[in-house]
Formats: sequence, structure tokens, C-alpha cells
Amino acid sequence: MNKIQVVVWGENVHERRSEAIRKVYPEGIHQCIASTLSADESFEVTTATLQDPEHGLQDTRLSNTDVLIWWGHIAHAEVADEIVDRVQKRVLEGMGLLVLHSGHYSKVFKRLMGTTCSLIWREAGEKERLWVCNPGHPIAQGIKTYFEIPHEEMYGEPFGVPAPEETVFISWFEGGEVFRSGCCWRRGNGKIFYFRPGHESFPTYRQPEVQTVLRNAVRWAAPEGSPWIDAIPNVKLSPEGIRQE
Amino acid sequence: MNKIQVVVWGENVHERRSEAIRKVYPEGIHQCIASTLSADESFEVTTATLQDPEHGLQDTRLSNTDVLIWWGHIAHAEVADEIVDRVQKRVLEGMGLLVLHSGHYSKVFKRLMGTTCSLIWREAGEKERLWVCNPGHPIAQGIKTYFEIPHEEMYGEPFGVPAPEETVFISWFEGGEVFRSGCCWRRGNGKIFYFRPGHESFPTYRQPEVQTVLRNAVRWAAPEGSPWIDAIPNVKLSPEGIRQE
Amino acid sequence: MNKIQVVVWGENVHERRSEAIRKVYPEGIHQCIASTLSADESFEVTTATLQDPEHGLQDTRLSNTDVLIWWGHIAHAEVADEIVDRVQKRVLEGMGLLVLHSGHYSKVFKRLMGTTCSLIWREAGEKERLWVCNPGHPIAQGIKTYFEIPHEEMYGEPFGVPAPEETVFISWFEGGEVFRSGCCWRRGNGKIFYFRPGHESFPTYRQPEVQTVLRNAVRWAAPEGSPWIDAIPNVKLSPEGIRQE
Amino acid sequence: MNKIQVVVWGENVHERRSEAIRKVYPEGIHQCIASTLSADESFEVTTATLQDPEHGLQDTRLSNTDVLIWWGHIAHAEVADEIVDRVQKRVLEGMGLLVLHSGHYSKVFKRLMGTTCSLIWREAGEKERLWVCNPGHPIAQGIKTYFEIPHEEMYGEPFGVPAPEETVFISWFEGGEVFRSGCCWRRGNGKIFYFRPGHESFPTYRQPEVQTVLRNAVRWAAPEGSPWIDAIPNVKLSPEGIRQE
Repeated sequence: MNKIQVVVWGENVHERRSEAIRKVYPEGIHQCIASTLSADESFEVTTATLQDPEHGLQDTRLSNTDVLIWWGHIAHAEVADEIVDRVQKRVLEGMGLLVLHSGHYSKVFKRLMGTTCSLIWREAGEKERLWVCNPGHPIAQGIKTYFEIPHEEMYGEPFGVPAPEETVFISWFEGGEVFRSGCCWRRGNGKIFYFRPGHESFPTYRQPEVQTVLRNAVRWAAPEGSPWIDAIPNVKLSPEGIRQE
Repeated sequence: MNKIQVVVWGENVHERRSEAIRKVYPEGIHQCIASTLSADESFEVTTATLQDPEHGLQDTRLSNTDVLIWWGHIAHAEVADEIVDRVQKRVLEGMGLLVLHSGHYSKVFKRLMGTTCSLIWREAGEKERLWVCNPGHPIAQGIKTYFEIPHEEMYGEPFGVPAPEETVFISWFEGGEVFRSGCCWRRGNGKIFYFRPGHESFPTYRQPEVQTVLRNAVRWAAPEGSPWIDAIPNVKLSPEGIRQE
Repeated sequence: MNKIQVVVWGENVHERRSEAIRKVYPEGIHQCIASTLSADESFEVTTATLQDPEHGLQDTRLSNTDVLIWWGHIAHAEVADEIVDRVQKRVLEGMGLLVLHSGHYSKVFKRLMGTTCSLIWREAGEKERLWVCNPGHPIAQGIKTYFEIPHEEMYGEPFGVPAPEETVFISWFEGGEVFRSGCCWRRGNGKIFYFRPGHESFPTYRQPEVQTVLRNAVRWAAPEGSPWIDAIPNVKLSPEGIRQE
Repeated sequence: MNKIQVVVWGENVHERRSEAIRKVYPEGIHQCIASTLSADESFEVTTATLQDPEHGLQDTRLSNTDVLIWWGHIAHAEVADEIVDRVQKRVLEGMGLLVLHSGHYSKVFKRLMGTTCSLIWREAGEKERLWVCNPGHPIAQGIKTYFEIPHEEMYGEPFGVPAPEETVFISWFEGGEVFRSGCCWRRGNGKIFYFRPGHESFPTYRQPEVQTVLRNAVRWAAPEGSPWIDAIPNVKLSPEGIRQE
């Protein structure tokens, strides 16, 4: 069986600018996530960053990517629109996409959702408890009734997204808020999973339950069918079925 | 403009058996809700209970009901299947249905959802905070970012229902749980709203925000189109369109 | 009761360039639709075109628009991105949007859907029969089991959109295709209805059933709640609820 | 890897009563489908019929079934409610369910949908063309733009079901109707696929494209996660998380 080709994309700005963040993720957030996933032998994992040529997302590389993981925060605006077009096209064609934490405001996510993707937040390092809403869901396997992250940034409702097709996790925050923290959508032929945790100042991606969810989500988001993007190319394949002018 | 015909159905068992509950709702839960709604001149509100002949839900009465509100708890099993059939048929035809609190386990709700409708709970009289997930939704009008109920029974995820078409409220509980407390579905031609609050031992239905939500939900659930139940009767109306054997 | 403020936006290119099209719609497609809707006293209808300053969609005008109707075809690329941003923002805030026929490829629709919005087509002037999938739906009121358009352009599946929340019409074409011709979505606080018929070379918008659907759809898409666009502005309204840094 | 355990349930009445039907399916419809699927080495396929004790759906057998396929028509009423309860419970727990053709009116399907499941029909042996709405969907793999069945019973809209989460096929009928012929829903932890074709008087299940769809659908419907039915049993597993009274 072929390995699932995973690219972990990291903005890689906080880690370079701030010593405090570098202490939490000296290898970079993207490398931390990549290492975690590499432990699974069914994945082939590489990384890409904002600073790479074409942000590391060349056409041929994306064509061979099964699942793209996206972490960005303060440099969303620096992502080139041409690359956003390319990622959107690949998702519609069938590539899975995991959007993490502050990636809710990435150009890529907003493009695919069509909405503001806004939310409320508070950086107080408070306790987050993520409840499983859907215990049989493939993304929740290995997670009990709930799991906790001792210190995280709070994200709260209202979350400005289209109604999720599946809500896998809802978070409870110590300070009194709630948030739909694990949401699934399909767009075109691709699966999209938004997963809330992962502020740069906390070692959230080193927590085993978070790693379990990421691994599950990669498997869930991997393409199941053949690539497909648009009705029009089919014209050449099956002219008798379409009979255009 | 015609008034919206509302029937508030109450199981009416706790109030008769328990003095403690009678102190909270001496008039009965159904009467409390009905009085609240009657203040709105665009509604015509009556009540029905389990103890009435046919549980007060005669065929002709249901035919003239625009929105049915359902509160039940310990006597779900005593509701006759024939009446459940009748309510289901009227919802599919277009009647709105508001299911309150412990009504999640009513035969009527389980019939329309097709699932267990299970959840977790704890009776500790703790604080519940209901967040608005969808501030522009008609059911949330007049509610700010959130509202609180000082003492309520806790209901927690996982909630065993089909993915809601719209999630209007999510609750945060003092004890650490979350719950999708305001959920919308359409079944056939009818709209269904599940609203979590309303344990019999707390004066929840006397709280202005809860009353606002109920009024909004009645307006939202009222039929918008013509009654419709089944493809088959249309045969007689439009034979040319169906051309059955 | 206030009238529903409707703006009919027309690309207005075919009608000016082609004598054949001008014969079908001498007043312009947008004017034909506007006249039709104006017959309903509960609507206040105006028009706007691509050629107007800011395409006729000034900020203050959009702010006062309840429902925007969009017809475009060969000049999608000429619509300024700034205006697309503005329309998207107003839809998310609560303005209803009806997208007609070739508007499936408009920047506005693609922005809100996040997908290709592609489909197959054939211009043969063949018979289209639109079946009602949801006879109780407000948009289908006054339409029998189905209605026919004697000569129309064919649009066929696959239709590259997110799964519709409601499918009101599916078309059968004489030449052998099918298409989801009446689809509903909600994005942010706004309702979106895509309605397939309306090729520029056929007098489709003069047909009573098509006009009935447009009128119904305007009423359905009109805002039900208060305007709302983003979690962030609420901070000022209810600081105690959000307690951001 | 473990084989997917498939049970093909057949009503098995037409085949025994009518010589005409017996000529089409001398082995029984269920046996025809089972033989087809058995060619796939990743499936372990058995059959069950209405006439078997407990209709062949004993508790222990269902517990070991990954995907149940249901074909019934004139004897829906003879299916014991107790067995319907059992099948529903297993679907909610995670078993996949494929409902075929006239199974739309089975107790099992109506129970899980909560609606009438009604439709219009005509038995004229006309041509059906099934269009793929979602070419990348796992159930559509191996199917081109569309496929045709030369002679089938017509089923037409409106189809009285909750809005499908995915619409994989829509049928075009020679006589002028359309139908959502391949629809997906999730209920509890189980996946449900309704597939329209398969009238008893036509050799539909001997057609390669139909067999391809059935094989794809079995793979799609097979459980992905762990079995799960209800919030309540979890109490024992994670008492600290639930803390019920």
C-alpha cells in the first residue's frame, strides 16, 4: 500500500522572531508536527514554509500531496494569492486539508469557506477541555470522553463558518466560553478538517491526545476516490455524454 | 394576518406528584409556557396534557396547529404510539415542533430523528451559560452574546442526533461540560427546534431570555408554505405530471 | 410593514451587443426581471448594471438592499474585486442573494461557495422540465408537481458546489441530462438561492412560473434577523462576555 | 486485513410466488447480489431472508455484520418490529446499511430517516440514465459521466427524505422524471446509502455498473471507527468525565 503523502506547512515567523516561542518550539511548529506524524509508518511527511520559494508549494509537489496541514498566524497576508489559488484547486481535486488554530484566518481557509471565519479569543493560558461529540468518528478514535489541554489560548463562539457537516469536538474553556473545535467539511472532492488547539506559546503539539487527533485526521482526509476538479475536462473523455455545442 | 396557532403539550406528572415541583410551577410547566407566549398578540395559545383524551392531540386539533411545543420527562412511555404517528405526520406536513429539555427522549423526537437522542446529565443546579453561535439567526434575536441560567440540570455531549442543520446555541456548564442546546432540523415540510433548558425543579421558564427564545422559535417554526405530506396524493391533483400505471 | 428592497443586477452586455438578444429582451434582462417583481407591492425594486459607477453597487446602496439578484455571463472578469468583496460582506451580514443561470460562474457566487461552480452545458434550445423536490418549500409555492420551459440552454451535472442545504428543483432535459436547478445555502447571516433558468436568447423570464419562483425566492431570501458580520465588533457591545486581552 | 462482513437481506417473496420474476432471478435477488459481491475477495458475504427465523438477523449475527444490504417490496409489513429495533441499533452503533430500490418503504429505512420516504413511480420498463453528481466520490469510482439501465421501473421526485448529506447519483428517465438515486446519510455511528435501481422484473443487478456501485458502496459503508451507540454506557468507562448523580 502506498504511503499517505503529507506536507506540513508552517508560517515559521514567530519561531524566528521571538525567543520565547523558540523555547517552546526550537525546531519550529511545522517540524514538531512533522516529527510527530513521521512516527506513523503509513505517512511520508515533509515540511514547507512561507519563506521557501513558492512557499514550498510548487505545482508538482502539491500534485503529489495527499494531505496538506496548515499553520499560520501573523503573516497570512504574505501568502501569495497565486499559491492560494493552487491550494484551493488541489483541495477541490481531492487533496485533504487540515487547518490548525490561527489558520482559521488564513487566505486558504477563508477562500474555501466563503465566510469571515471570525471568532472571539483571549490569551490567558487557561484550561481547555475538548469533548467528543461523535465518539465513533474516525478522527476521535483513541480519545476518551474528553481530553484536556492545561494551558491554551481561548477561542469562542460565534465561529463564522458554514454549518459544519460533522462536529467532532466542542471545547469548554475555564473562563466560560465554548467553541466548535473539530469541524469537517467537504469542498469539491477534498475533505477539510479544522482543529482549534495549537497556540504558538504553548507546547500543545507535544501532547499525545493532540497528536492522536492529527494522525487520525490525516488518515480521514486522505483522498478516497480519483482526482477530480471540474466538469469541463470530462468533455474530452466522454463526448457522447455531454454533447456540447 | 392570522394568528399562529400554538399548542403547548405538557406531560403534567411531576407537578401533580411532587410538592417541590408544584412550588416551582404551581400552574404546571405547560401553563407557565403558555402564559408566557400568550403575551404575544400574534399567537393563539392553548395547552394539552398526557391526561387529556388522546393526550389532547385530536386529529382535527393537530390539523389546526401551526406549532406544537413538547415537554415530557418521566412518562414518555405512556404516550400512545397512535398519537406519536399523528404528531409525526403533522410535522412532515408542515407543523413546527419545539422539543424542550427532557423531551429529547420523547417518542416524538426519537421518531423524527431516527437516532438514540442520548446525552449525559447531572442534576447539581449549576450555572449554565448559553452562547449564541449564529447571532443573526431569527431564534437568537434579542439575545446578546450569551445569556446565563443560574441553576439548571447539566446536559452534556455526545448528543445522539443527526448533524443539526443549524446550531443556534451551545451551552457551557460550570461543572465542565458543553452541549448543543439549540439545534434546528427540517423533516418533510416541518421545522424542528430542540431547546435544552427547562428542568422541572428550576424556574427556568420564568426567565426573560428563555421566554424570548421560545417566542422567536415559535415564529421561526410556523409553516411557511402549504401543507404537504406525501408524493402519492398529488397523483389525484396532477395526473398529467405523474402518469403512473 | 416595510417593503423588501430588491436590486436586480444585470451584466447588460449581450443586450447591447447583439441584435438577436435585444429582440428577446429589448429593455435588458435586468429590466425585465425588475418589472416582473415590481408587480408585487411588497417589493421596492431597482436595477444596477456593470456599466454603472461602482457597477451600481455603492456601499450605502448595498447597505439598504435586502435582496440582490445577479445575472451575468460573458463579462464576469470585468466585475471589480472590490465590489465582489462588498457584496460578499453584505451577504454574510444578512442580505439575500439570488444567483441566476450563467451567474454560477460569477465572481460573487464562486467567492461564496469556495468551489469551481462548474457544470456541463449545451445550447440547443431544448425542453426543460423542472421538478419540485420539496413541495412545501416557500420557494415552490404556486408551482405544481413540475413546470416546463419550452426552449432553454441545457445545464447538466456534475454541478461543482458544496452540497446544497435544500434542493428545491431538479431539471430534466429533453437531451438526456439532469441538474440541481434550485439550490439553497446559508453563508454567514445571508441566504443564497441559485436558480438555473434564464439563457439570454430565450424569453424565459417572461414565463409566469419562472416569475413566481423569483417572487417566492425574494421573500425567502429577505433578512429574518438583525445584520451581523463578525464576532469582533460585538466586543464593544458586550465586553463582559468576551474579555479579550 | 479482516474481510468486510456483508449480509444481503432479501424479502424473497416475489421470486417464490411469481414465475415471471423467477425467470429473472431464479436464485433469488439476494443470492444474485451476494454472488456478485463475493467476487471481491475483501468481502465475506452471506444472505438472510424474511422467512428465516428472526428473519436471519439474530443479535449475534448482526453484531458481526459490517454492512447490511436491504431489498424488500411487498412484505414490508411482515418484518417484525423487534428486528427493526435491532437493525436500527446496529446502524447507530456503526454498521453500514445499503437500502435498495423499493426498500425505500421498508420499516428499517423509514425508522432511520424519520420521514415518509415517499416518491412517485411508473412501471413501464423505460430507460434510466444515472448521472454522477460527485465524480470523486468513492461510491462513483469506476463509473464514467453516467451509465444507463435499458429497462427499469421509474421512481420520481419528490423523494420524502431528509436532505441527503451527499447526492452521488441523479436519474433521468425516458418518460420525463428525475430522481435522487444515490443518497448518503450518517445516523449515529453508521453510514446509510440509498441506491434506487433494482426492480424485481428486470435483470438490473446483473449489470456491471450496478455491481460496481454496490461494491463501492459496501466499502464506503464499512465501519471506520469503533462501535458506539449511546452516551450512557460511557458512564462506566469514564466516570470522572460524566459525574452523573
